[in-house]
Amino acid sequence: MNRQQLVDQIWKKKSYLCVGLDTDITKIPKHLLNETDPVFAFNKAIIDATKEFCVSYKINTAFYEALGVKGWEALEKTVHYIGSDHFKIADAKRGDIGNTSDQYAKAFFEAMPFDSVTVAPYMGEDSIKPFLKYVGKWAIVLGLTSNKGASDFELQKMISENGNEQLRPEMLYERVLKTVAGWGSKENLMFVVGATQAEEFVNIRKLTPDHFYLVPGVGAQGGSLKEISEKAMIKDCGILVNVSRAIIYASEKEDFAKEAAAIAQQYQLEMAGYLPF
Amino acid sequence: MNRQQLVDQIWKKKSYLCVGLDTDITKIPKHLLNETDPVFAFNKAIIDATKEFCVSYKINTAFYEALGVKGWEALEKTVHYIGSDHFKIADAKRGDIGNTSDQYAKAFFEAMPFDSVTVAPYMGEDSIKPFLKYVGKWAIVLGLTSNKGASDFELQKMISENGNEQLRPEMLYERVLKTVAGWGSKENLMFVVGATQAEEFVNIRKLTPDHFYLVPGVGAQGGSLKEISEKAMIKDCGILVNVSRAIIYASEKEDFAKEAAAIAQQYQLEMAGYLPF
Repeated sequence: MNRQQLVDQIWKKKSYLCVGLDTDITKIPKHLLNETDPVFAFNKAIIDATKEFCVSYKINTAFYEALGVKGWEALEKTVHYIGSDHFKIADAKRGDIGNTSDQYAKAFFEAMPFDSVTVAPYMGEDSIKPFLKYVGKWAIVLGLTSNKGASDFELQKMISENGNEQLRPEMLYERVLKTVAGWGSKENLMFVVGATQAEEFVNIRKLTPDHFYLVPGVGAQGGSLKEISEKAMIKDCGILVNVSRAIIYASEKEDFAKEAAAIAQQYQLEMAGYLPF
Repeated sequence: MNRQQLVDQIWKKKSYLCVGLDTDITKIPKHLLNETDPVFAFNKAIIDATKEFCVSYKINTAFYEALGVKGWEALEKTVHYIGSDHFKIADAKRGDIGNTSDQYAKAFFEAMPFDSVTVAPYMGEDSIKPFLKYVGKWAIVLGLTSNKGASDFELQKMISENGNEQLRPEMLYERVLKTVAGWGSKENLMFVVGATQAEEFVNIRKLTPDHFYLVPGVGAQGGSLKEISEKAMIKDCGILVNVSRAIIYASEKEDFAKEAAAIAQQYQLEMAGYLPF
């Protein structure tokens, strides 16, 4: 899915909601455990119930890998079930030397029909470039994440490359945004910026004025949808806000899908009020 | 496998060789494509042929994921086939917020019997801690990698935390080594340090004098076994040197396992000369 197609979906649905399928087999309603593939049964019901309110699904690969081969099967079935009207994110945080990143790109873009993969920047350019070679596919690179550990390295201060120290020293995540933006375009690169980092959003928009951001951290992690929408939105929207637990675990009972739809719709309605179109 | 058990294996075999199972289905001998599971058939033959010369196997998960469910099956069969006398590394470069890293730890330490997982440090402490909770298991955190992209961020200069600028500014990878070392111990943390970074090894040893390193980059990537052994070895060895392509693709013909064994043995014999015991 290219940028125009994604923006068309956002415009049509008046939503920039991404539903995170962090499906934990120990947290899904008990009656689903009788299904042949409980995780897929859960995802299918969540997708059917929420698809009109969201433009994207993010599949957190860790929860599937934890189940071994059966989990990987559920992952494949889920990404195929989503279909082509939603932007499909493999939240996999991959990244390795070039010949290995090639294989990760194959896994998510050829063996499976994902539109995008989240990628860790630590190993540099050759770890990210293989994901940028596919037309209409995206690398979503970690910028400033929503977790407490963001302060350990991402928010650490760097010495400027040209030797001219500025009033405010550059932080690692800023160096990452500036450097990685040069490796691709606003048509094949997005950045992960956590909703819990609202005070940094204005600065982040200055560094990468045209890129889409994937914004986790709204919902269970406590970030404010209003605040990040005001600070990060651009004229073609430019943000996808992910909500996982607050939607998919809205109820533990047989009505889980209906409750998930209700919460997703609440987000969609709030988002419609922030969109510039 | 704990540190003493690993060192016992190194002592017994006079080897600190790790064989990297970066098994690419397009590169294995053609006659294996008739097997039900060509990747596992290849790995099995390589393991049988090399096991007496190495103490560890490193499975690069990307090559398996690229094959979908069949690949994940081959991965599981392979890690079980290796058995308990070898230190089993999932080279997966994982790392995410805490509740997601929990799931990755489950995937590799509970659903599969790996001894260790390679982990990316960018997201900080809560992305790494879940891997450290398992007794006898290890997180192998990226320090300074062997690829060209290491210069993009890992080798970038940081402003010192206490405001006292030193003669030589600290680089990001040094900050990572120092900080991450405080989150675990030499019994549950190793670091990835590329063999192509030999000039940094003396400095790295000063920062982390007691930790084991996983050293990729010997062989196809050009690092020198002699140089890194001289610079990084400590009294209980403290290094695992990985060789992937130079061993597993030593021959494209039916004699591939025999040729792999011959190369693995060459490495083992050279290593025996560098060991302090």
